[in-house]
Amino acid sequence: MSRYNIAVIPGDGVGIEVIEEGLATLEAVAKAHGGLSFEFTRFPWGCRYYLEKGKMMDEDGLKILRDFDAIYLGAVGFPGVPDHISLWGLLLPIRQEFEQYVNLRPIKLFPGVTGPLRSGNIDMICVRENTEGEYAGVGGRMFNGTPQELALQTAVFTRRGMERVMRFAFDYARKNGRQKVTSITKSNACNYSMVFWDEVFAAVSRDYPDIRADQLLVDAAAALFVTRPERFDVVVASNLFGDILTDLGAALQGGIGLAPSANLNPERKYPSMFEPVHGSAPDIAGKGVANPVGAIWSAQMMLEHLGEVEAAGVLMKAIADVLAGGEVRTPDMGGKSTTTQVGEAIRQKILI
Amino acid sequence: MSRYNIAVIPGDGVGIEVIEEGLATLEAVAKAHGGLSFEFTRFPWGCRYYLEKGKMMDEDGLKILRDFDAIYLGAVGFPGVPDHISLWGLLLPIRQEFEQYVNLRPIKLFPGVTGPLRSGNIDMICVRENTEGEYAGVGGRMFNGTPQELALQTAVFTRRGMERVMRFAFDYARKNGRQKVTSITKSNACNYSMVFWDEVFAAVSRDYPDIRADQLLVDAAAALFVTRPERFDVVVASNLFGDILTDLGAALQGGIGLAPSANLNPERKYPSMFEPVHGSAPDIAGKGVANPVGAIWSAQMMLEHLGEVEAAGVLMKAIADVLAGGEVRTPDMGGKSTTTQVGEAIRQKILI
Ligand SMILES: CC(C)[C@H](C(=O)O)[C@@H](O)C(=O)O
Ligand SMILES: CC(C)[C@H](C(=O)O)[C@@H](O)C(=O)O
Repeated sequence: MSRYNIAVIPGDGVGIEVIEEGLATLEAVAKAHGGLSFEFTRFPWGCRYYLEKGKMMDEDGLKILRDFDAIYLGAVGFPGVPDHISLWGLLLPIRQEFEQYVNLRPIKLFPGVTGPLRSGNIDMICVRENTEGEYAGVGGRMFNGTPQELALQTAVFTRRGMERVMRFAFDYARKNGRQKVTSITKSNACNYSMVFWDEVFAAVSRDYPDIRADQLLVDAAAALFVTRPERFDVVVASNLFGDILTDLGAALQGGIGLAPSANLNPERKYPSMFEPVHGSAPDIAGKGVANPVGAIWSAQMMLEHLGEVEAAGVLMKAIADVLAGGEVRTPDMGGKSTTTQVGEAIRQKILI
Repeated sequence: MSRYNIAVIPGDGVGIEVIEEGLATLEAVAKAHGGLSFEFTRFPWGCRYYLEKGKMMDEDGLKILRDFDAIYLGAVGFPGVPDHISLWGLLLPIRQEFEQYVNLRPIKLFPGVTGPLRSGNIDMICVRENTEGEYAGVGGRMFNGTPQELALQTAVFTRRGMERVMRFAFDYARKNGRQKVTSITKSNACNYSMVFWDEVFAAVSRDYPDIRADQLLVDAAAALFVTRPERFDVVVASNLFGDILTDLGAALQGGIGLAPSANLNPERKYPSMFEPVHGSAPDIAGKGVANPVGAIWSAQMMLEHLGEVEAAGVLMKAIADVLAGGEVRTPDMGGKSTTTQVGEAIRQKILI
């Protein structure tokens, strides 16, 4: 009997709605598969918490989270709380402190789903660096309030940080029968950071002669995502480039509401965190129409990470079946179903 | 009689081929329109020059260029010359020293052209900051060759630099009957630079109550480019975000080979530079199949900038007519024509 302690942070807006579906679905998976159970501990952290208490999470929040097997997060963000406050008070510290240096984002156009592209077979996996780079939070302002005012924002790229995420990408390719790892760069313009990135990528790739190493400038990559998505297999990118390309990829696979992500600490020294790619979407919050697939698929990635491969396989098949069915889908996918109806449809496939 | 002195830098690879078509087309425009003539002065600068002489352009290159009415550039880049050398030795110094702080890039899906999207009306104009930001070239390396090695890359955003490009965007919207300016930001992660960007945008937009001011995170913007391109009108973005989004946009409008750009010094204190968005494409160089439309359209933007509005209108119509015809197109657009055939077809429309 495996029992997992999961820290649940629904957060704000639609985060709360989709996480409910994810939790109900995990319960359904546990019910269908003897020998698996979950204990969910909910934390009310997020922007509403901030508006009440002046902090996004408790001071000892990271210490509390450390002992869980995984973290399941909805979305953070609320009108009235500046994004850089909400994120630097919760999401980004978790990613950085728990060395969740891989942000794994599958991008796959499922049968039954119509994406915006006329053609193109989409099935790639993005490995995004998740702890440093352009998200270092290092910088400053000078000459405040004068015409000379300026801001500096410094990206920090370490050999260790790049090497570990690149190795993860190559190891992932090997383990999953993928052929090629494409490194996203911009060394023509970013003459320190990305030149270094390219050097480390070249060195790491030499240890994986069985996997093709490939590289593209980020601007060219964005164009190729829409003209030849089938050319991508495993993609490894910096924090910012990975952020941009995976949102683009999410749109191409049928919508940001479908897209899952796993913030992984591959060494399992700290808990990993699973969250849909979409945000808190205040415009549709509370209406019961948010797409729960991204959150449920993120829960599926959590099962995989916990080593529950069989259960993960069942859940993945249930998601794919509901998408292929084409009937039960939320308005963002052109359907009329509610958040709960989509969750229910997936759970029914599991319990059969 | 207006006579313009144009500095021509064909550069490398297909740059040389497409610039020839652009020059022949400008000659055709001059012939069709009495009172207009050009003097072209060619400079052999670029990567071949670098391989021979160890420099991308002459030491006094910028001084020489300063006296021209405009610069017409093909593409720079060659296998064997690292990109960061070729670009920091020619393209980027020209943009920065001549205060070409606006990189103007129209993105338009022409009738007759099939883009990769199933649907969507595309007609936007991107105003990309072109002298600072993520392209400041500021940074360094530390602990070289050790496991602790790291690189810093500092983006520099000045109030003056942001204000002028944002004002240009709003003024452009006003002059051209456009309704909305969308600012691209990432202030949730880039907690100094983009927070400052947002402040300046809010301040500048207050001076233009007649134009809608709108803002999007760069990741969301990339997704919306493919799901709702018609929502974009004028877009203003930093150097890097503008680079990524305009390559994506170029792909959406039917291919990077079609896309033009104008590096503008709006005050006309220094010459502006016109260049296609595509690169030197060594893989197809010398085969006579490169798409010349991006280069010819860039020449059209040069005519507009020089104040030759009527001639610019004629050339734009000729380009649109050939695209609408659908017969004469290069292989990148699914056709069988050569670079010269496409150029010829456009020139024929002008001379009629
Ligand atoms: C909310 C934001 C800081 C975050 C990011 O940029 O990492 C989000 O866009 C994501 O992709 O998870
Ligand atoms: C060649 C490169 C430095 C350049 C840029 O990034 O500005 C190019 O991609 C462009 O868009 O003009």
